[in-house]
Amino acid sequence: MALVTESEIVLRYAETDRMGVAYHANYLVWMEVGRTDYLARLGFPYSSLEAAGVMFPTCDASFRLYKPSYYEERLRIETRLEKLRSRKVVFGYRVMRSGELVVSGRTEHICVNAKLRVQKIPVPLFEALGRALDNRK
Amino acid sequence: MALVTESEIVLRYAETDRMGVAYHANYLVWMEVGRTDYLARLGFPYSSLEAAGVMFPTCDASFRLYKPSYYEERLRIETRLEKLRSRKVVFGYRVMRSGELVVSGRTEHICVNAKLRVQKIPVPLFEALGRALDNRK
Amino acid sequence: MALVTESEIVLRYAETDRMGVAYHANYLVWMEVGRTDYLARLGFPYSSLEAAGVMFPTCDASFRLYKPSYYEERLRIETRLEKLRSRKVVFGYRVMRSGELVVSGRTEHICVNAKLRVQKIPVPLFEALGRALDNRK
Amino acid sequence: MALVTESEIVLRYAETDRMGVAYHANYLVWMEVGRTDYLARLGFPYSSLEAAGVMFPTCDASFRLYKPSYYEERLRIETRLEKLRSRKVVFGYRVMRSGELVVSGRTEHICVNAKLRVQKIPVPLFEALGRALDNRK
Repeated sequence: MALVTESEIVLRYAETDRMGVAYHANYLVWMEVGRTDYLARLGFPYSSLEAAGVMFPTCDASFRLYKPSYYEERLRIETRLEKLRSRKVVFGYRVMRSGELVVSGRTEHICVNAKLRVQKIPVPLFEALGRALDNRK
Repeated sequence: MALVTESEIVLRYAETDRMGVAYHANYLVWMEVGRTDYLARLGFPYSSLEAAGVMFPTCDASFRLYKPSYYEERLRIETRLEKLRSRKVVFGYRVMRSGELVVSGRTEHICVNAKLRVQKIPVPLFEALGRALDNRK
Repeated sequence: MALVTESEIVLRYAETDRMGVAYHANYLVWMEVGRTDYLARLGFPYSSLEAAGVMFPTCDASFRLYKPSYYEERLRIETRLEKLRSRKVVFGYRVMRSGELVVSGRTEHICVNAKLRVQKIPVPLFEALGRALDNRK
Repeated sequence: MALVTESEIVLRYAETDRMGVAYHANYLVWMEVGRTDYLARLGFPYSSLEAAGVMFPTCDASFRLYKPSYYEERLRIETRLEKLRSRKVVFGYRVMRSGELVVSGRTEHICVNAKLRVQKIPVPLFEALGRALDNRK
């Protein structure tokens, strides 16, 4: 089984819209929060990766809404790696509210350098991601 | 052929991230700008629909990035209806920069009332959407 | 001395701009996070206040930047009530990064009902805010 | 009299909150839209300034709300330079809805280089800003 990290957020007023629920674009922001925690947990904080010229723009994404979510609710974001290629990663997410699925999603990221040119994922990171995918110790 | 509406935006500084390009969650905001224009063009401004208890939360969405986009760039959003069901609509989008595809996307919306309960799309709107889908005049 | 509550955030990628730092409009979002925690701490979660028809739109605000802040940084928001009137409150904020002042700010809120008409702050909340201002036990 | 530029926006759904009105942090985004247009009008698009290592982070800002504003409303942002110093500028804004003042605001910007170090405003820009302040031809 793959490694799953958990992140917690409290839904901000700024994230609501006039329907009274979370505005949907924020699901992508929450997934990014999950991804940040996931990479930090692997020992590769994304801010350090970027400083080293390794960036992962989101080139493809999707989500599905199951339940509306509301201001001040505490949500848990589960993040896991779903696919690993030499130049690409795919993450999957589940946003949960006390055991109930609120949003599921998926983001695909291409590895680029500081000039936004495609590059191979550096070996140490690739290996760490590989271990997380298999969750081998 | 289906009706296609065009909306224009200028990429805001607020929409950039530290990679220097548009932050991806904003693609969904731009699609929403396109959808707002599309419905207004049909004679059903979304603010009026909501006032009448007809709302279309985004329950499923996806996008694909083709080119990065930058601050102050002028982008054109093409919006079209892709599917029409009694309780559901699917919109498709193409974000263009001077003839070049930047982002494509798709959003699915369920029709709900003010209490967020699923309802049928009201007849006049359903018929207008049907005409737009076929673009019959 | 007035009650001061502390909230912690980790700076999100979504909150950065192409200058590489936090986009300034987010300071107001962080202050709102602080305000949410402050009211919950007093026993009056803002979501419950709104459900009871007591809302506090931000009618005046200001901030001053002392230091830029970066993606993934852990920031602490200190929130305190600065002024209490029958229909108005003023909050003050200090955003800190390990002992260093990053941003200071101030927001003023008018008390309105569900129809956005000005009203007096309900007595139990007014009294709780009064105690917090004086930090009497 | 100082030069005043006008920008138009249509209030986005993404910009609303669950009170049904524009979320206040967006006033700062709208002011930034006005500032972008102002600098472009002077012949110094901000994207070009940044490319040349001339940046103006917002180090101080304030706003006052006069009227709530709603989804799909068309707003006009009036932008003018209020103060010009060798290393600093202050802009003033009025957000209008068909002749009615909705929000007023003010932002202060320090001139920095690509490494975020304070620098003098380059002479050609300084002179253009000086002319705009006096609105001399």
